[in-house]
Amino acid sequence: MSIATTNLIEQQAIEAKKAAKILNLLSTEEKNEAILHVASMLKKNANLILKANKLDLIKGEKANFTSALIDRLTLTHERINDFADGLCQVAELEDPTGIVKSSWTLENGLKVDTVTVPLGVIGMIYEARPNVTVDATGLALKSGNAVILKGGSSALESNKMIVQIMHNALEETRIPKEAVQFISSTNREVTKQLFTMKEHIDVLIPRGGASLISAVVNNATVPVLETGVGNCHIYIDANADINKALPIFINAKTDRPAVCNAAETLIVHEEWFNVHHKQLFEMLKEQGIDVFGDEAVVNSFPMASLATEKDWAEEYLGLGIAIKTVKSVDEAIDHIDQYGTKHSEAVITDNAETAKYFMSQVDAAAIYHNASTRFTDGGALGFGAEIGISTQKLHARGPMGLPALTTVKYLMSGTGQIRE
Amino acid sequence: MSIATTNLIEQQAIEAKKAAKILNLLSTEEKNEAILHVASMLKKNANLILKANKLDLIKGEKANFTSALIDRLTLTHERINDFADGLCQVAELEDPTGIVKSSWTLENGLKVDTVTVPLGVIGMIYEARPNVTVDATGLALKSGNAVILKGGSSALESNKMIVQIMHNALEETRIPKEAVQFISSTNREVTKQLFTMKEHIDVLIPRGGASLISAVVNNATVPVLETGVGNCHIYIDANADINKALPIFINAKTDRPAVCNAAETLIVHEEWFNVHHKQLFEMLKEQGIDVFGDEAVVNSFPMASLATEKDWAEEYLGLGIAIKTVKSVDEAIDHIDQYGTKHSEAVITDNAETAKYFMSQVDAAAIYHNASTRFTDGGALGFGAEIGISTQKLHARGPMGLPALTTVKYLMSGTGQIRE
Repeated sequence: MSIATTNLIEQQAIEAKKAAKILNLLSTEEKNEAILHVASMLKKNANLILKANKLDLIKGEKANFTSALIDRLTLTHERINDFADGLCQVAELEDPTGIVKSSWTLENGLKVDTVTVPLGVIGMIYEARPNVTVDATGLALKSGNAVILKGGSSALESNKMIVQIMHNALEETRIPKEAVQFISSTNREVTKQLFTMKEHIDVLIPRGGASLISAVVNNATVPVLETGVGNCHIYIDANADINKALPIFINAKTDRPAVCNAAETLIVHEEWFNVHHKQLFEMLKEQGIDVFGDEAVVNSFPMASLATEKDWAEEYLGLGIAIKTVKSVDEAIDHIDQYGTKHSEAVITDNAETAKYFMSQVDAAAIYHNASTRFTDGGALGFGAEIGISTQKLHARGPMGLPALTTVKYLMSGTGQIRE
Repeated sequence: MSIATTNLIEQQAIEAKKAAKILNLLSTEEKNEAILHVASMLKKNANLILKANKLDLIKGEKANFTSALIDRLTLTHERINDFADGLCQVAELEDPTGIVKSSWTLENGLKVDTVTVPLGVIGMIYEARPNVTVDATGLALKSGNAVILKGGSSALESNKMIVQIMHNALEETRIPKEAVQFISSTNREVTKQLFTMKEHIDVLIPRGGASLISAVVNNATVPVLETGVGNCHIYIDANADINKALPIFINAKTDRPAVCNAAETLIVHEEWFNVHHKQLFEMLKEQGIDVFGDEAVVNSFPMASLATEKDWAEEYLGLGIAIKTVKSVDEAIDHIDQYGTKHSEAVITDNAETAKYFMSQVDAAAIYHNASTRFTDGGALGFGAEIGISTQKLHARGPMGLPALTTVKYLMSGTGQIRE
């Protein structure tokens, strides 16, 4: 990497930090007006975005991108309207900053307020979807944060155009355009520079596949909000009602197989398995699901392949499922402990004690009793926009909306108080 | 490092994780009873602790430890009573787990509860003070967490004896003794093993000097709660009342110079400086404070040395102070941005606008207007015991009590809900 590029990135980070301080002084109304203006300019300039997107799509086709990747990359008038409307929704959400969380006065008269404030500068590292450029910008600005955007190189032209339009729009508002920084270098070493810029960046949020996320988590000294990898399990207990178990499993597996809250492993108590495996396998066949199972599964379902270690850890993100039989709920919990990603886990049982035990012992952001894992989602839970789904335990867990982009300050007002 | 040691540490971490699951099933009463029993056994066995402490002190004297270090290392009957009483106070605090933070039902009938739960396994890495062994154990157990203790090698014998007494005590309670793991190896490579045990450890909390903390922050892939380095500034504005400014500064500098909320740099507006520097310097002289100042300071106070870059970043932790003069509040804020550690910062001014601006633009856990920085402390703020003072923005900021040792789970209870 050239020294010039490093300096450029650092310069962008410094500009972002300065802009964050200005953002900190704006009112909710000023932020909302700016966000709405950005939304309207994105709609107005949709044709420019589509033209730039076309360039990315041509490049992607030449590079033989999968149809799934092409789909994620593709923008249409409708998709542009959707992300612009998303900005309007963000403008309507409550401002998460400036909220007094607690307030008290010490005996000596010192007044203590804890107040929510922006994190400062957010580094967003993401992959193909160009809508993230807009979604992340809206959530960052609304919560008073500057944002440094590092999108995937496959969407470079689309992202550049979107950012240019957003910059032009911001110039007509009170938000400095420097609050939105876009890194256009496609050099991976440049992304790595962001990992260690503790001086200028307050948090990194990686959004994308497991390898992107682990690269950030394992190399960053800047604090990270880990999102989205979901190796989710459905555990069908001995006492599970088949009329709940099968529909829940099929919904969790097939409703949207490519998303992080989809089921990837089915764990079945052997007592239930012995009674119901024929119905289970019929349904798997009907749905065209590829099965990777343990010996018990392979022995009773000839279309299944024997699962390897890799299958237990795999996010198929498609119509594959790993199936394991167990002798007890503890064996199921141990398996989830070993292979789960702390995202969403479900137990299907009519035994309330088993459900309670599973929910206490499994370590994950969301734990379901007799329901599909597909509800771990800001939209489904009624939060409005989300910046990602946290699979870590510190700071924020599960779907992260605007409050996850804030921290608190202790503001102490005195009249000369000293500690005796 | 031998393979045997690595395996031992990993084994300890695995045992801690298993014990954390058992802890998760205990009632508040069961945890409290255990903590109180540990407290009483520590008091009963004080002589054994003092005998072990004597061994550490002899070693320390041979190694020519400073008197400050010897003081931190030294236990007395009174200090043992203090930390045992601290455990009793922790038993009395509200259980931070099992608290329903929010609860709602989706239109389809799926019930959603967010409930506080323990983090799991806490890795505590600390230096000389043996009381941390007890304080951290109490806070961890009360919040349902297992703890892995890695104390400083200078306190090895004291810590080993304290842990042995705590283990013996726990054997008579419902808390498995494996919930408290002590690493007795003094090999630094062993500590490093803890940095990357993401599978088994949920959070690392370093407590100690800046070099310990930065070693953890820069090398850990396990999430870290950063604590305690405090390069705190007092900014005396043009409009500061000298009768507030001088007492506040002296209190912040001299009340307990070795602690993290003590003042390390004084920033003075030149208008105030021009009028009041004689009184300021008289007081510094009187208090025996060593001054490292910029040119304006050195020119008017012959006993001052010229400050170097190092002084602006230095935590003297003793009777030294760096003094800088500025032309504006913005210059003060820029200086704090560059050298501050986001701990505690104060502005002394009678101008409410300046105070508000300073409090909004300075990025720190605690910001004071017309009061000493010494109040950033769980005890002073009325929180009860604290595990450390967070200088990071994610998860917890400022003094961290029991709630900082918890996270939330989304518990979803359904009757077969699927996403349509």
